Amino acid sequence: MQLKQIGEFKLIDIISNYTARPPASLIKGIGDDAAVVSEEAGQCLLLTTDILKESIHFNRHYTSPYLLGKKCLAVSLSDIAAMGGTPLYYLVSLSAPSSASFEFIRNLYRGMGRLAKQFNTFLIGGDTTSSRNGISITITLLGKAKKDSVIYRHGAENGDLIYVTGSVGDSSLGWLMLKKNRGSSRKNSLIRKHLAPSPRVEIGIEIARSNIATSMIDISDGLAADLRHILKQSRVGAAISLACLPLSLSYKKYCLDYSKEFYYQALCGGEDYELLFTINPKNRSKIRKLAKQTKTPVTCIGEITGVPSELLVLDSSGRELVLKKEGYKHF
Amino acid sequence: MQLKQIGEFKLIDIISNYTARPPASLIKGIGDDAAVVSEEAGQCLLLTTDILKESIHFNRHYTSPYLLGKKCLAVSLSDIAAMGGTPLYYLVSLSAPSSASFEFIRNLYRGMGRLAKQFNTFLIGGDTTSSRNGISITITLLGKAKKDSVIYRHGAENGDLIYVTGSVGDSSLGWLMLKKNRGSSRKNSLIRKHLAPSPRVEIGIEIARSNIATSMIDISDGLAADLRHILKQSRVGAAISLACLPLSLSYKKYCLDYSKEFYYQALCGGEDYELLFTINPKNRSKIRKLAKQTKTPVTCIGEITGVPSELLVLDSSGRELVLKKEGYKHF
Repeated sequence: MQLKQIGEFKLIDIISNYTARPPASLIKGIGDDAAVVSEEAGQCLLLTTDILKESIHFNRHYTSPYLLGKKCLAVSLSDIAAMGGTPLYYLVSLSAPSSASFEFIRNLYRGMGRLAKQFNTFLIGGDTTSSRNGISITITLLGKAKKDSVIYRHGAENGDLIYVTGSVGDSSLGWLMLKKNRGSSRKNSLIRKHLAPSPRVEIGIEIARSNIATSMIDISDGLAADLRHILKQSRVGAAISLACLPLSLSYKKYCLDYSKEFYYQALCGGEDYELLFTINPKNRSKIRKLAKQTKTPVTCIGEITGVPSELLVLDSSGRELVLKKEGYKHF
Repeated sequence: MQLKQIGEFKLIDIISNYTARPPASLIKGIGDDAAVVSEEAGQCLLLTTDILKESIHFNRHYTSPYLLGKKCLAVSLSDIAAMGGTPLYYLVSLSAPSSASFEFIRNLYRGMGRLAKQFNTFLIGGDTTSSRNGISITITLLGKAKKDSVIYRHGAENGDLIYVTGSVGDSSLGWLMLKKNRGSSRKNSLIRKHLAPSPRVEIGIEIARSNIATSMIDISDGLAADLRHILKQSRVGAAISLACLPLSLSYKKYCLDYSKEFYYQALCGGEDYELLFTINPKNRSKIRKLAKQTKTPVTCIGEITGVPSELLVLDSSGRELVLKKEGYKHF
């Protein structure tokens, strides 16, 4: 059997079965944005790891090594943010051809270092090896959180409102733009969102501190695909409204030049690294306050309702939309 | 400039400079076998990460996926052992072509799971991605140790005795055998040592508990190269004696069939995953006791002496040997 016939998520399920019985200090292993290990009284350590691979996740001709370095760390920071954690430490494993430009590698780490500084995160180790084809960067990031404040993918309840930070679809639209124009200007906001996403660490921490979110995830595979993770793990359904999706001005302006369907990138495009979370409606004013405090836009896009695992996408006249393909899947 | 002109260790030095000021809770970052982060009162968490890449670290035709999985984890377990730590958790990042055999991947994780069970270590996360060429496995392993029992590379003092566990050179000799015979029998002890090394976790923990080692490292790059790490970080010199090197019967029997010089693989061959450590001579009987208790052979191969960073290798008549090439370096 070939891997592509199994699929990424099935593979993870299978891998999970090979592990021994979890020790008492493990709060959450495989199956969320980060693993959670209890540390000291009331505190726990969060761990997450991400691979960024040339030709799969990035194209050296479309980005700078500095921006690539920032993005590598941003992806992991976003996972810690999605748990409501404070990032602490990271380890970097690098594979690169021995013919790779040293300047490239240096600027890659410089980019990581820049973002790490912004979020008080410290490089504590890693590994390097030669590679025959292309560069590959794997980051393991550690964060901490209060044990009873960690926000998981499970926990969403019927009647909860669904929120998303920032805007959705910009990153994948930026990617389409880059591909079509073969690397054009990095100043375009959509392209910048794709090449240098800002992880939502501050509001993630505040949401955890206020204990208002019943579930949270970051949007890496796409809004619909990541919402489905929440639905599956919370055993609930959801309805979201197209009219409510937060779209940037650039998205609205350029979308149909690069994508056949207007909402497709917003629903199914990956790599936005926005936070998607659910709250009880009584906490509506609290989340608005946190958004203001952290200067992070948040938008209510729907609610938890209906048949478990079922995601209804409603257009402006309330008609149900059929989603054909959701987000990016490996293998 | 190209990476190969910089070299791996210089690159690590350079990378270290891009990191922000270390937080107070970081005890040891880059520069040892694992990073050390203080956890709770008197306890700390150890973190290490290792890449194993097809065509660089392994050849699919020479090993089984099950043995490969065991080796992947063994490499990281050996790093935790070299700090005197108890392994706890691990994360696995896997890149594989979508055409890869599922059975291969399944058995890879099964092998890891088998070794993890043996050492009470638990898989807590990871990432998977497709790859265009070959399989790559990156493991991040977490362990714990008492804060004042962690054993670093620095700390060796003049007059200390240098010890090594097990035997040296078997793994690289096994590798030469595999290459020459194109994958021959896995039952040969040298080949088994190469394909399925046993990390020295038990004695590592006991050495730490007894507080007798002044420095410790695991042999991954080769005895001479790894001893040089201790010398550099401890700012001492050393003299080791060829006649004292612990060589297996198989090594003695087959060495000259595969290697031009009899001692070369023992001194410079990598991947033995034995522990190399220094102790004050007064603790000689204590280490013998620990060796017996953990059923781990230990051998005194020399002492800390002479000019800082200088490694003297003496033959049976006390003459100094010149080492031309030491261990494996990436880039």
